[in-house]
Amino acid sequence: MPPGKLHLVPLGGLGEFGMNCMAIRWGDDIIVIDAGLMFPEAELLGVDIVVPDISYLLENRQRVRGIVLTHGHEDHIGALPWVLSELNVPVFGTEFTLAYVEDKLDEHGLLDNADLREIRPGERFKIGPFTVQPIHVTHSLVDCVSLAIHTPLGVVIHTGDFKVDPTPTDNRLFDLHAFAEYGKEGVLALLQDSTNVERRGYTPSERAVRRKFDEVFARAERRLFISCFSSSIHRIKLAVELAAEHGRKVAFVGRSMNNSSEIAEDLGYLEIPDGLLVHPGEVKNFAPEKVCVLISGTQGEPMSALSRAAVNNHKHATIEKGDTVVLSSRIIPGNEKAIYRMIDHLFRREAHVIYEDGSSPPIHVSGHASQEELKLIINLVKPKYFIPIHGEYRQLKLHAELAGSMHGSVGNVMLIESGDVLEFDELGARKAGRVNVGRICIDSGSRADVVEDLVIKDRRHLSEDGFVLPIIAINKLTGRVEISPEIVTRGFSAGENGFMEEVRQVVVQTLSQSSEEERADYGVIKEKIRADLKRYISKQTQKRPLIMPVILEI
Amino acid sequence: MPPGKLHLVPLGGLGEFGMNCMAIRWGDDIIVIDAGLMFPEAELLGVDIVVPDISYLLENRQRVRGIVLTHGHEDHIGALPWVLSELNVPVFGTEFTLAYVEDKLDEHGLLDNADLREIRPGERFKIGPFTVQPIHVTHSLVDCVSLAIHTPLGVVIHTGDFKVDPTPTDNRLFDLHAFAEYGKEGVLALLQDSTNVERRGYTPSERAVRRKFDEVFARAERRLFISCFSSSIHRIKLAVELAAEHGRKVAFVGRSMNNSSEIAEDLGYLEIPDGLLVHPGEVKNFAPEKVCVLISGTQGEPMSALSRAAVNNHKHATIEKGDTVVLSSRIIPGNEKAIYRMIDHLFRREAHVIYEDGSSPPIHVSGHASQEELKLIINLVKPKYFIPIHGEYRQLKLHAELAGSMHGSVGNVMLIESGDVLEFDELGARKAGRVNVGRICIDSGSRADVVEDLVIKDRRHLSEDGFVLPIIAINKLTGRVEISPEIVTRGFSAGENGFMEEVRQVVVQTLSQSSEEERADYGVIKEKIRADLKRYISKQTQKRPLIMPVILEI
Repeated sequence: MPPGKLHLVPLGGLGEFGMNCMAIRWGDDIIVIDAGLMFPEAELLGVDIVVPDISYLLENRQRVRGIVLTHGHEDHIGALPWVLSELNVPVFGTEFTLAYVEDKLDEHGLLDNADLREIRPGERFKIGPFTVQPIHVTHSLVDCVSLAIHTPLGVVIHTGDFKVDPTPTDNRLFDLHAFAEYGKEGVLALLQDSTNVERRGYTPSERAVRRKFDEVFARAERRLFISCFSSSIHRIKLAVELAAEHGRKVAFVGRSMNNSSEIAEDLGYLEIPDGLLVHPGEVKNFAPEKVCVLISGTQGEPMSALSRAAVNNHKHATIEKGDTVVLSSRIIPGNEKAIYRMIDHLFRREAHVIYEDGSSPPIHVSGHASQEELKLIINLVKPKYFIPIHGEYRQLKLHAELAGSMHGSVGNVMLIESGDVLEFDELGARKAGRVNVGRICIDSGSRADVVEDLVIKDRRHLSEDGFVLPIIAINKLTGRVEISPEIVTRGFSAGENGFMEEVRQVVVQTLSQSSEEERADYGVIKEKIRADLKRYISKQTQKRPLIMPVILEI
Repeated sequence: MPPGKLHLVPLGGLGEFGMNCMAIRWGDDIIVIDAGLMFPEAELLGVDIVVPDISYLLENRQRVRGIVLTHGHEDHIGALPWVLSELNVPVFGTEFTLAYVEDKLDEHGLLDNADLREIRPGERFKIGPFTVQPIHVTHSLVDCVSLAIHTPLGVVIHTGDFKVDPTPTDNRLFDLHAFAEYGKEGVLALLQDSTNVERRGYTPSERAVRRKFDEVFARAERRLFISCFSSSIHRIKLAVELAAEHGRKVAFVGRSMNNSSEIAEDLGYLEIPDGLLVHPGEVKNFAPEKVCVLISGTQGEPMSALSRAAVNNHKHATIEKGDTVVLSSRIIPGNEKAIYRMIDHLFRREAHVIYEDGSSPPIHVSGHASQEELKLIINLVKPKYFIPIHGEYRQLKLHAELAGSMHGSVGNVMLIESGDVLEFDELGARKAGRVNVGRICIDSGSRADVVEDLVIKDRRHLSEDGFVLPIIAINKLTGRVEISPEIVTRGFSAGENGFMEEVRQVVVQTLSQSSEEERADYGVIKEKIRADLKRYISKQTQKRPLIMPVILEI
């Protein structure tokens, strides 16, 4: 690389939803902003998560000085276990963000060797030739920062995810002053979140949800179940406060909800009065009007606590007639069918279900800036170069058009996608070639060895362990499985005779141990079969074929 | 069946989206209202459409007097080819509805033997013991009716699909007076469309779209592509009118768009000035600002004209920089990813894309009644019994609650689902048992013999013809297929040696004849592979295995 050049190299998240990751390079030094995952599309059967191809970083292994995180959402930190096991560099993040990271690395057995370094908003730190100042911003999660990266060619501001919430629930304000200061001093490039560029006006404050929650607590006559993203600390805090006010005990149900609230409490983002919290198993001992259950699973994920409760298959969370269930989250595109299926089950249990239906006050607000907020930040920062980040292609394009029309505030707009190298020098900026990028599929069913043998890096996976395809014919009407399941395999050497018959028996057993409602919900039943088969096959053969249950309705 | 009883037997559409079909029985006479299809969920790999199980009708074969249609949408008429080939009874519908039905039956070679009988709004007709009065209603399609069915126990009103549009584009008004008359005389039961029960207020008039279309025509500087459901006659009429006003020639692209506009023109719902229409192949001969292309494919269906144009793979529809593409339709849940993928491709061609984004004036309005319209009809009809129809369970439930709170207008509310028998007699109404219902999957790839051997009625299909599962590994980065496809089959006896190698070659050929963009769009490429393989295998072996392409990203 010639001297005097600065490279911005997006490795994910520009032109696709999720998997945010960007390299910034000056000479022989590279820093990485975020390392997120993407949830796979339905087409990627049998794959759990998707992470960015980091060949560019691996080829420059000795140059990578560290990874700086903007906040703790999965699409910004979810690829860390995979990245760190290939490239163990220091990770910089705020206290709360690192708490999520610790939890995640611990799960993967990577924590002991990790070098985690806490950063604080307003406190500059150095990595290689870069000085980085984290700037506190508001978002649906807490302790989020934008990053002002001082490079030899000028300051690059990466917004991370943000909205401009004038009344955050924790009263920690968006640091408009820092953006204003940088704008006055001069900014080389602004990289800004494009997620909500299609929305006019302002995103409502997180506080707007309080009015609806108030109403729900006032009206609920029996048990109250509230589901939100486990990282929605503002939302959890609100529910806990209102539960205390209304004399309801609180139980957390679901692993992610438990972890997340524990972290939030440890770090002072969540105060739970003594005696308020009860174990999920105790819920049944309280009068229905005296409990509030915070439960994971807003997206209808088949194995989540709420999905299981909806089909009456959760040990502790039992939903009965007259109970209230709140889904305080957005419907992520692609999840509609699963979510509405879950809502239908809840209606069948005669629960009152409150979900986002466009009514006001809202039961959910977005964490991302709408058009007026995006323009406000551009006005404050007045960058020479503007680069839209975090979005599908149409969002990047619309964001580029929005900024392109702001002649007083923006010098040039550069529309780049994952893999493009954006080069800056004294003469200006230009696209300068491409690096390898792509999506790596990971099957995280077994958490310990996510990186070693579960990566479907290429066809080798298939030609080594092959696949197992159980085909189940379910009578739509009765929910009965009428004929013995077929097991189709390829490239999977089962070893002993009769093993396929055993596999078939595992499927039969899983089916017979499932309720009628579960069998009617193909998402649930396929996931159960997959989990059970994987456990069995892995134990018996030490192999990890791709397992793809197919349901035929008859 | 004991004398003096009236049975309402929903065979589809109550507790599920689509597949609307209801039997009404008095003694030895049955009439059927609508016979619709459902588009299959992603889980039903390899299946094209889903139709209701009509065993109840087949068991009472000699009692079925006819099928009465409310309007021509697929979820109300799409199962007719399947139903009529099992049970050839008279079909009653309005002129426009029957035109769609003729087209459909003709395709399936069933038209010659069909007994189609035209009905007119306001003109009563008799079927068995029932006298039926069609009542003109407004909806997104033209010539739609509600049905007032005079039975020995009183009048049953089935709304079909409707909204109350005070300013319909064709000036044919919603017949409020007829509903008012029936309300005064007394109505036994009102069966009302639940589709939009979650929406507050009123659904905007179809005329609201005109303002947005006006703006689009005024601003478009180059070619203008407008996509809407081919049955949106109001929308097509509007586009044609504006094209004439703005001096643009009109071309129809896509089979369904062509058929539908031809029918609408024949029947006087659409007037196309002489010389306005040009063949799609001529489009290139006109200056870009002088053409408007009406094109099928709002839902991102992989093989639709618009999806193919978006990846530059349509013979006539070429979308270039600066062209405008309008998607005048709603996003059907489950289609989000496909639609946004198509929109992304259009953005990459640097087209201006106008899609539903919540802005005003709207580019699309719904055809279904919102809460205030539903209440208006209930107020007019004042039924003794109210039964929500057309909706998933939560919608039926919410609709039941809405009607249940209208004490002055509604006697009792009955919440029933597909398969429930609702019995009326002199004493009142009650659920009285269930009949067999369910979903039948049909692979309509080959249209001629949809009913004979393509029905996956049970596992026999699989055990007779088995399945063929081509597995293709595509390099996400390059779009290249790196290794020869695997072909996995089971239960499919290929006959000659080497046949599987030929099958593999078909897949290789399909892949090599596809553009890079097509290969990157798994929806498109899977559909192409499936279509080509089906043709080949069927020709070579006269067999119809289930074909399920699987793409592995590497």
